[in-house]
Amino acid sequence: MPREFRHRRRVQFYETDLAGIVHFSWYFRYMEEAEHALWRASGLSIADPASPVGFPRVAATCDYQAPLRFEDEVEIVVRIESINKRSIKYGCTIVRGEMTVATGTLTAACIDKTSASPFTAVAIPEDIVRKLTT
Amino acid sequence: MPREFRHRRRVQFYETDLAGIVHFSWYFRYMEEAEHALWRASGLSIADPASPVGFPRVAATCDYQAPLRFEDEVEIVVRIESINKRSIKYGCTIVRGEMTVATGTLTAACIDKTSASPFTAVAIPEDIVRKLTT
Amino acid sequence: MPREFRHRRRVQFYETDLAGIVHFSWYFRYMEEAEHALWRASGLSIADPASPVGFPRVAATCDYQAPLRFEDEVEIVVRIESINKRSIKYGCTIVRGEMTVATGTLTAACIDKTSASPFTAVAIPEDIVRKLTT
Amino acid sequence: MPREFRHRRRVQFYETDLAGIVHFSWYFRYMEEAEHALWRASGLSIADPASPVGFPRVAATCDYQAPLRFEDEVEIVVRIESINKRSIKYGCTIVRGEMTVATGTLTAACIDKTSASPFTAVAIPEDIVRKLTT
Repeated sequence: MPREFRHRRRVQFYETDLAGIVHFSWYFRYMEEAEHALWRASGLSIADPASPVGFPRVAATCDYQAPLRFEDEVEIVVRIESINKRSIKYGCTIVRGEMTVATGTLTAACIDKTSASPFTAVAIPEDIVRKLTT
Repeated sequence: MPREFRHRRRVQFYETDLAGIVHFSWYFRYMEEAEHALWRASGLSIADPASPVGFPRVAATCDYQAPLRFEDEVEIVVRIESINKRSIKYGCTIVRGEMTVATGTLTAACIDKTSASPFTAVAIPEDIVRKLTT
Repeated sequence: MPREFRHRRRVQFYETDLAGIVHFSWYFRYMEEAEHALWRASGLSIADPASPVGFPRVAATCDYQAPLRFEDEVEIVVRIESINKRSIKYGCTIVRGEMTVATGTLTAACIDKTSASPFTAVAIPEDIVRKLTT
Repeated sequence: MPREFRHRRRVQFYETDLAGIVHFSWYFRYMEEAEHALWRASGLSIADPASPVGFPRVAATCDYQAPLRFEDEVEIVVRIESINKRSIKYGCTIVRGEMTVATGTLTAACIDKTSASPFTAVAIPEDIVRKLTT
């Protein structure tokens, strides 16, 4: 039932760029890792092959406060900010020790993968809403 | 002197994910590719080893309107939305044929790489401002 | 009918690492880009949704002779070294100007994506062999 | 003193491709993660800013036996196969449960980052050899 989940990971070499810091695109992947870990902690997989629904992005944002470097240990705190009928918005904070290094959001729509026009939002199945929120 | 630049590229296999579409993190890299191509078209390199300044991100956003697939040809239109004393904000539109598939923004601060505390914003050198805007 | 294809591309910022050079994992993606461009030049798509076959890797190698840096322009020369009944082996050379910076190989097996046990090699369709080799 | 190290990690969504499996280039990053974890377990960092030496790749190989999928838990076993005067060769096995999914090698040369011609191999410092091998 976690509405908040804390995901730990270490900065890898291939995530850094020539400026010696983690490339900004990686923060979005860090946030997604935390989102998927939250789903697993809720007894779900966001890409369950048996499920007719999928959750592509409709929006993503990140504000960067401090750089990250090779071998830094970071924690990504992900919270469900809102669940509407057809979409979920997550708020994320990336921290290293006591320092907030970035904050961001991910918004995903629920779609019917089996539809002829799959990229149309549909209602999120009740089972998923319940597991993510209770 | 381009304040707008159009960068073309093709979707690569390794940019897709198990949902069969380009992973959302790649749109940020597409936008950055266009930003750097705009700098080259202005006679600049954003990572010139001889330059004391660098341009780390302070913010990035993307709104996704349509999926992209393997071998799609896309065009990323990048515009300088604003240049402040210490930062630059770009607006980007990603199009496939006539269709806008995403819009986004990148904001970068100017820093002094040679400083003891490099992640403090400094004034953008006038030469860079001039080349990017005239 | 190309048995050899030359694919040009520029080193992107996000491909570099903290050592200031392209991360070694990218050379494999460069080689794959050239492979897929060779298929397109042969009138084929390696991931045609209408095709029952796919081409997962069975082996990959790379020897690195010189580093690559941001904004370098490189050319990847890909050749079909051999086509067996069920697999294709490519030989690649990555060059920057006159200098060979790396050589490598990619080997892919042909599989039947529609099979209940899809990761078993099957015969490469004759149409594909013909287009790749004549 | 580990000459062998076992590194665990989970397959992430962004590591998969449209074929529904982990893209082959990621196996090289998995192996590198294990290499760097082995260094940490030996009391070392492979990218220590205070060290004059670096370890760029001179060769990498991988043989693929079985696909990996989203959320699979894998273990990468890395062994030092040989340490020569100027280079280190690692052997890696990637396993999922009881199944070997891939085997590979990474070879890195020791270079002097402070040299005017840094991409020339130099002798590996004795302290590093000792920590990696005893």
